[in-house]
Amino acid sequence: MKQRSAEILCIGTEILMGDIVNTNAAYIAKELAGLGINVYHQSVVGDNPERLKQSLELAFSRADIVITTGGLGPTYDDLSKETIADYFGRKLVMDEESLHRIECHFLRLNRVMTDNNKKQAMMPERCIIFQNDNGTAPGCAIEGEGEQQGKTAIMLPGPPREMRPMFEQGVKPFLMKDSDTRLVSHTMHFFGIGESMLESILHDLMEESLNPTVAPYAKTGEVQLRVTARVKHGEDAEAILQPTMHQIEEKVGEFLYGIDVGDLQTAVVRKLKEKGLHVALAESCTGGYVAKRITDVSGASEVFECGICSYSNRIKRELLGVSQQTLDCFGAVSEETAREMAAGVRKVSGAEIGISVTGNAGPEPSEGKDVGIVYIGVDSDAFSKVFLLQVNRRDQDARETIRYLASSHALSLILKAADRY
Amino acid sequence: MKQRSAEILCIGTEILMGDIVNTNAAYIAKELAGLGINVYHQSVVGDNPERLKQSLELAFSRADIVITTGGLGPTYDDLSKETIADYFGRKLVMDEESLHRIECHFLRLNRVMTDNNKKQAMMPERCIIFQNDNGTAPGCAIEGEGEQQGKTAIMLPGPPREMRPMFEQGVKPFLMKDSDTRLVSHTMHFFGIGESMLESILHDLMEESLNPTVAPYAKTGEVQLRVTARVKHGEDAEAILQPTMHQIEEKVGEFLYGIDVGDLQTAVVRKLKEKGLHVALAESCTGGYVAKRITDVSGASEVFECGICSYSNRIKRELLGVSQQTLDCFGAVSEETAREMAAGVRKVSGAEIGISVTGNAGPEPSEGKDVGIVYIGVDSDAFSKVFLLQVNRRDQDARETIRYLASSHALSLILKAADRY
Repeated sequence: MKQRSAEILCIGTEILMGDIVNTNAAYIAKELAGLGINVYHQSVVGDNPERLKQSLELAFSRADIVITTGGLGPTYDDLSKETIADYFGRKLVMDEESLHRIECHFLRLNRVMTDNNKKQAMMPERCIIFQNDNGTAPGCAIEGEGEQQGKTAIMLPGPPREMRPMFEQGVKPFLMKDSDTRLVSHTMHFFGIGESMLESILHDLMEESLNPTVAPYAKTGEVQLRVTARVKHGEDAEAILQPTMHQIEEKVGEFLYGIDVGDLQTAVVRKLKEKGLHVALAESCTGGYVAKRITDVSGASEVFECGICSYSNRIKRELLGVSQQTLDCFGAVSEETAREMAAGVRKVSGAEIGISVTGNAGPEPSEGKDVGIVYIGVDSDAFSKVFLLQVNRRDQDARETIRYLASSHALSLILKAADRY
Repeated sequence: MKQRSAEILCIGTEILMGDIVNTNAAYIAKELAGLGINVYHQSVVGDNPERLKQSLELAFSRADIVITTGGLGPTYDDLSKETIADYFGRKLVMDEESLHRIECHFLRLNRVMTDNNKKQAMMPERCIIFQNDNGTAPGCAIEGEGEQQGKTAIMLPGPPREMRPMFEQGVKPFLMKDSDTRLVSHTMHFFGIGESMLESILHDLMEESLNPTVAPYAKTGEVQLRVTARVKHGEDAEAILQPTMHQIEEKVGEFLYGIDVGDLQTAVVRKLKEKGLHVALAESCTGGYVAKRITDVSGASEVFECGICSYSNRIKRELLGVSQQTLDCFGAVSEETAREMAAGVRKVSGAEIGISVTGNAGPEPSEGKDVGIVYIGVDSDAFSKVFLLQVNRRDQDARETIRYLASSHALSLILKAADRY
């Protein structure tokens, strides 16, 4: 099958005016890259039929597939479907299944359905419908006929929580339907190694590996490798994926914290659950950030009972049992204080693993400790230690970056401690 | 002066591939709206000179001003400046001030400067340079001559922490330089009232008011009104702004939590500092989210000493002094438990204001309490109360939304309590 190209066209005056950030384009672009479909242009237009029409014509002059988001709402200015159907010379017709689903949606929410919402069930003739499990607007795909043979428009709703599941469940299989191959991926999650270091260690393997492909993605303090196999029907994807993944693990396994695990906090909650362990947190400069990330994960209550944000020395003493002498001699931002905080919160809570964070997130030096100095302590049966993190950032995002990286290091220490149980 | 239009053209393969989300487009679009400059199109292209050239020509066929971000880096594939200078028939020449600043930047970081970095100081002839205080790449503006009279290209670096200050300090004054008017805005921050309710109460005022204009912006659980006056040199902006702001305050003042205050957590830290007050937090379902938001604000240590994340009943009892009887009879998610948690954490910490959050953030009902039920308690000398928040969301973002809204309500309660001191 020839290499296809796609353009992403996001429709919505709120995006154009900057009232919301366009996360849809990034999501779709990344998914298309995974499917081996090239993207050379992304654009945004407002809810204006004339400009939408021009943008659509331009996009189809450059690409085979145009994926739109937005403009499928119930109000009069939502005209994506009309404009795109018109481009393909199709009429809109009532789709009974979509109408039924929209009616059910309103019944469930105990809200009144208006005639405007019925408009959302009007779909282009001869289109493929993607039902919306998280809202009212169905999505659809129109495949061009005659002169428009080979052109495909895919329309998706604007809200990410509706668009993403629809893309995953409807659009991906649709895009792969004519393909005799399918893509199977695993994501390997690394912490504690930079992207450039990882790439230099794995350079040859990444260059030489065509099936599976190995692609790195960096986010603050972390790197992910997506290992993707392209397999024909009946072929075993794992037989292609596993040898490469083992090679990677041999080289950089010490930094690998999980496979297909989402993020550090999810890995933490999962591992503690598996092992029947609990963690307790004593946070100073992160002030609840580690606790917040752990409790982002549903089911965190099984592994996390107690976190103490001890911003003041008095709370460090009274609740965590840090000694006055330690605070006097070494200061609140010190290895010694971090050690006593971790041991203290473990004792208060009865958890198997105690974690502490104390440092200076800025913007001013305090107690003679530079901005970006953070001590992260762990206290557990087989593994008790204090790590020093130094973040060399002075820009306007420095405080957030320092706090985020410190919380990530704390999470990775929980995983290390849990591994010893 | 005639109404000008602009297009935003973001350059970078990382954006095109979806490896990073394009927050620059939203930021610039919003700023341009504030300057009264219309935006009808945003686009993204990769680091490809040919496609960049085509996109630039297209953009100038539709708009007077084209603002680009990205492609100003030191590597060989960063070709924005070359391509855009070429479009205007300008050569690149070494700018000594930019070179000097780049050299200083590397000296400060104690890193070696490469010849590639020198390329970043090569600027188009006869351009206006915007110096970069947060990185190496200067930005610039080229004003077209001859046939290109009236066309302006503005090139900005890609990293938001470099681009935003440059926009604020360099680009805004540049865009307003030929204008005999300037814009002055205040932002009024509301909590506890929905956007549609606010709009319906203020509808006539918003429709009738042309100078100042009144524009609403909604974000989860909050609404902001931006009140903007357009004034000539020497005119007093406040004389135009204040009467309208007073009218708004008369109608919806009870929901107003601050003016030009940024966000709820910044308003909280500022107000507690002003009044010399302290807050302590007992968080169950928000698990550190309130503490995290307060400590996002630098200087939080002056007003926040102690937060306790009490996920388990044992911690609620032992650290916060919630009675076993209360937990047995009413459950952990109850008005009574919230009341005792708020009083308990206030007592432990010695703070003037104690705040508690206990609820069910999902995904499963617990103790017979539905997902989205949250009790938020406040304990202080003149104001002690428990509020019930019910969030009716079941989608995949429900947990985050419930926790975020609960933390916002907690922050607004701190403001209410501080007002009574």
